[in-house]
Amino acid sequence: PQGINEDLCGLTEYVGTAMGHTIGLVIANLDYSVHELLKIDPKYRSIGILADRTGAGPQIFAADEAVKATNTEVCMIECPRDTEGGAGHGCLIVFGAEDVSDARRAVEVALSFVGKHFGDVYGNSAGHLEFQYTARASYCLEKAFGAVVGKAFGITVGAPSGIGIVLADTASKTATIDPIAIATPGNGGTSFSNEVNFFFTGDSGAVRQAIIGAREVGKQLLKALEPSEPLESGTVPYI
Amino acid sequence: PQGINEDLCGLTEYVGTAMGHTIGLVIANLDYSVHELLKIDPKYRSIGILADRTGAGPQIFAADEAVKATNTEVCMIECPRDTEGGAGHGCLIVFGAEDVSDARRAVEVALSFVGKHFGDVYGNSAGHLEFQYTARASYCLEKAFGAVVGKAFGITVGAPSGIGIVLADTASKTATIDPIAIATPGNGGTSFSNEVNFFFTGDSGAVRQAIIGAREVGKQLLKALEPSEPLESGTVPYI
Amino acid sequence: PQGINEDLCGLTEYVGTAMGHTIGLVIANLDYSVHELLKIDPKYRSIGILADRTGAGPQIFAADEAVKATNTEVCMIECPRDTEGGAGHGCLIVFGAEDVSDARRAVEVALSFVGKHFGDVYGNSAGHLEFQYTARASYCLEKAFGAVVGKAFGITVGAPSGIGIVLADTASKTATIDPIAIATPGNGGTSFSNEVNFFFTGDSGAVRQAIIGAREVGKQLLKALEPSEPLESGTVPYI
Repeated sequence: PQGINEDLCGLTEYVGTAMGHTIGLVIANLDYSVHELLKIDPKYRSIGILADRTGAGPQIFAADEAVKATNTEVCMIECPRDTEGGAGHGCLIVFGAEDVSDARRAVEVALSFVGKHFGDVYGNSAGHLEFQYTARASYCLEKAFGAVVGKAFGITVGAPSGIGIVLADTASKTATIDPIAIATPGNGGTSFSNEVNFFFTGDSGAVRQAIIGAREVGKQLLKALEPSEPLESGTVPYI
Repeated sequence: PQGINEDLCGLTEYVGTAMGHTIGLVIANLDYSVHELLKIDPKYRSIGILADRTGAGPQIFAADEAVKATNTEVCMIECPRDTEGGAGHGCLIVFGAEDVSDARRAVEVALSFVGKHFGDVYGNSAGHLEFQYTARASYCLEKAFGAVVGKAFGITVGAPSGIGIVLADTASKTATIDPIAIATPGNGGTSFSNEVNFFFTGDSGAVRQAIIGAREVGKQLLKALEPSEPLESGTVPYI
Repeated sequence: PQGINEDLCGLTEYVGTAMGHTIGLVIANLDYSVHELLKIDPKYRSIGILADRTGAGPQIFAADEAVKATNTEVCMIECPRDTEGGAGHGCLIVFGAEDVSDARRAVEVALSFVGKHFGDVYGNSAGHLEFQYTARASYCLEKAFGAVVGKAFGITVGAPSGIGIVLADTASKTATIDPIAIATPGNGGTSFSNEVNFFFTGDSGAVRQAIIGAREVGKQLLKALEPSEPLESGTVPYI
């Protein structure tokens, strides 16, 4: 797949890299002890690994695309507190597969979608905003966020956290959506990140409108904290 | 109020900003779903929000001033792990009010006191010290730290954490104080920050003396980690 | 002891400093309230303190040397989320002693070993690797990691976390070792660090071989994330 830097390392375990210091790895035959200690279902002989320093939403949405495209299951999703001094999370996603080629393919697909999903991530030195949207969630989004498989799903993220409360309120008022959850620094929904994250489903049109309304407000608030800094998309907005 | 940058953003939700990438926001009529998900008492139609990347003590002490000055209640205080690569916390404080003008006023007052409460925060590239004092704690300090309403209250903070143990020991030996709690990286009292924080009450004279004794020792210890760097107050010492 | 910067501060509580913004402190007669609040056994009148911004493994292995060399017990080991914007932990270690000279000596010995134990720590802007080995673990490693006292003990650490899974798998396949535990961002074994850490015992030869095998693989994977940056030891490799 394009742009995943497949040639940077000759090891069998290496698949590629992407934005956010994301690395993709594969293990053909996971050692029995590691299987046990990580509590991965023994039927999955092979695992694919997506791990990064910056981003949880982008990589999780990218992994959802991978799950749709391959014969793999997401076994593990964990979010460290990271972003290299920033306000958010890194991510660790493990795909289980019976065949190593499925595991490798899942990691390749996920790596290739990471850039798209940084498209509605905006940051300056004061914090960040993140928006994610899909018309049809699959099993990775279900596992990570409680999305409803087959239905639209959206996320608003604001940092510092208080901005995220205004995003959630704006999204809820902009369109008729079904709220799923709110994650705050201290309610167990984050790894003590400085974010408020809002997760919701509903009709695809409503979910998309809610995000667009929140994005408008969020950019103005975050810019007020550092008015002289540009506030731009990580890549190209996709919502 | 002076110095809160009220004109940086035209949105109704925007109130102002302060040091530490602190932003103040207000929502006149919080959406029902967000009310529910944040578990905010429904009687509070309006909320004020104070959120920042750097600092918990300064913003919490500032919010205590706001609670004294307005008809609001602190509904929520959470501390993410932050300080933009430093050793401490950021903060999220939500004020509940029945009237939006009370909520807005609380946020304005809090923003205007943030600078004062950075006065006894000292930092270099190795870590930081923080000291806070009030002769008369109110409901925000009670909720955040177990302060006794109406009595004096003090905090010593040291990072890296071991310095904070020496601060607590020095404070306890300098004057007759009533210890309330110690927060360490792993005892549940922090969000895995690299601090030891000591919270205490007592006669106002004793609390103040205890802080002054600890501050003397703390500055010398922190300076030993980076002797060539200046160790200065965030603004102007007030204790 | 050489190189611990004993003369940088004149306070009685100051012992010295080391790499990683590590500070060593001692309290001859710990205040009763602080004893109580930190839950330190009252029989330990004196405490030694080792605290740092960057590193847990190096300081914990150094403290293990100190416990072997002195009449002290490790009372407390806690790991904040730190490394000054990096992916790992800082550390707080408290030694208890009945005599202040034992406490001070333990801190001096620990400080003098910190540099050695940064020898197999490798980092670039994308993350880090850490390897630690001892032929004979003592009570600090037992308390921190579940090492078996008197037996060989090894650690592999990879960040971003996914690299650590490959390290654990490689170590387990390279030699016959006895796995003790795996710590991941979300399984409670870390303070939300962006690491997977693998802890194991076994014959000293096997433990050492397992580490050497994992180190080879880890360096290649981490380098792929930033190919133009050098990837060097913190000091001098010792394994």
